[in-house]
Amino acid sequence: MVRDLGQSPRASAINTATLGFQAPISEAINAVARAGFGGIAPWRREVEGGDVKTIARQIRDAGLAVTGYCRSTYIPAVTADAVRQNIDANLTALRDAATLGAKTFVMVVGGLPQDSRDMGAARRQVKDATAELLITARKLGVKLALEPLHPVYAAERSCLTLLSEALDWCDEIEGVTTSPQLGCCIDVYHVWWDPNVMRDIARAGKSRRIFNFHVCDWLVPTEDVLNDRGMMGDGVIDVRGLREAVETAGYKGLVEVEIFSARNWWKRPMHETLAAARKRLASAT
Amino acid sequence: MVRDLGQSPRASAINTATLGFQAPISEAINAVARAGFGGIAPWRREVEGGDVKTIARQIRDAGLAVTGYCRSTYIPAVTADAVRQNIDANLTALRDAATLGAKTFVMVVGGLPQDSRDMGAARRQVKDATAELLITARKLGVKLALEPLHPVYAAERSCLTLLSEALDWCDEIEGVTTSPQLGCCIDVYHVWWDPNVMRDIARAGKSRRIFNFHVCDWLVPTEDVLNDRGMMGDGVIDVRGLREAVETAGYKGLVEVEIFSARNWWKRPMHETLAAARKRLASAT
Repeated sequence: MVRDLGQSPRASAINTATLGFQAPISEAINAVARAGFGGIAPWRREVEGGDVKTIARQIRDAGLAVTGYCRSTYIPAVTADAVRQNIDANLTALRDAATLGAKTFVMVVGGLPQDSRDMGAARRQVKDATAELLITARKLGVKLALEPLHPVYAAERSCLTLLSEALDWCDEIEGVTTSPQLGCCIDVYHVWWDPNVMRDIARAGKSRRIFNFHVCDWLVPTEDVLNDRGMMGDGVIDVRGLREAVETAGYKGLVEVEIFSARNWWKRPMHETLAAARKRLASAT
Repeated sequence: MVRDLGQSPRASAINTATLGFQAPISEAINAVARAGFGGIAPWRREVEGGDVKTIARQIRDAGLAVTGYCRSTYIPAVTADAVRQNIDANLTALRDAATLGAKTFVMVVGGLPQDSRDMGAARRQVKDATAELLITARKLGVKLALEPLHPVYAAERSCLTLLSEALDWCDEIEGVTTSPQLGCCIDVYHVWWDPNVMRDIARAGKSRRIFNFHVCDWLVPTEDVLNDRGMMGDGVIDVRGLREAVETAGYKGLVEVEIFSARNWWKRPMHETLAAARKRLASAT
């Protein structure tokens, strides 16, 4: 039932953040393809300065799928004008996602605006904005993948924290549908601790809303919750168990490696990190 | 409905961790009483080396209630023998809690044992141990307060993270009762981000299981998730909203200030931190 990632390296993808943005996107594309992966997830910082069509063509020519385009501009803001600007920035990014042929636009929704303590208000702003973005996403044929982040990021990066909450939002915004355009990005780093994670993965699968699946590991100790993530197998997350749950729930997309690691992997040459990822996808994912 | 903590300073208590353990417990007791608080929550590190009865008498003579005794030895371990030792250590601490006249024994339950990725197994060990501790707690007249910790501590400190999960455990271990001996310690730092927190506080109140209520604040940015907590009002938590919810749910116990702050409050003289706490209990709690 569960795929053998050692035998099928093309069932895996590399999120370019894993490579620390040390080289231009063109070099990252070549390195990822050469290492045998089946997909790539680029970031806006690598794309928005360049020619999007050229980048799209290079990815296609390298035989790589674009699993997701990272990531949304944070939505919540103090003023309606500022929220409007954030939505507009995301509409632009959505068009680039379509040009890239990205399966999803990954939505990291943002935390509390300046001087606010009102998580409810932030969540309402995000839900309203997502409903609006969804209309354009549908026209463009790009799926929106809401990514609940670990609660340690609630204040500054994501008022959306629980997978169950992301699924509630999907139901609320899109309603029941057999071909959802709004779904979730499940990253083991963000959900592994949740006592309800297996229940929620099953629910996400049942509604066909697992759009992306990200792997890395939680190091003990973690020196920096933002940029000290580990390679699969180096931490305490039961990555294999979560992948089995996700695939059992019906996920057939690529397994995407996304590792923010300022003190370790970002300091290594790309080919070394990619080789390690391939190995650990086989042995510890 | 909600108490005025400015008018009623004795409705508040100080957890001695707030003072950074810079002075012996006897000095902390005097300082807390002199500052006008109604209660204190001592730690085992301050108590276990000394004469527990003498400390208990000093606290009583100072007119202070003991809101809670901090805290349990972590339960999960690789071997059954090691779990047994952890339970035994907690049984000893429970007797000291009774001697101190503590309303609760605060249970921070522990995370994953060495080399384990099995959160389910850790949780089962904790639940079994809690069921056993509850028998002694009942005999001693000390309540057990399960404290769900922020998920950032899941690996190393607490496999129990959600308030809803703590309440599920209470139901599972103790069953429905009108005079619960097993309940929760709700700390705003650990639960503020949870989209279900208001629902769960109401549930906790309904089952009379709010045994302790801790306040501090989440700083932005947080330099160290362990020891960089803020004074109420200095961060992004809606402390007032959470206190209103807890009191509306029926909590009548003291509001306990617990601030781990290595870079700020622990460096200040006790009287200064206590004065600041009194002020912020009135203005931002």
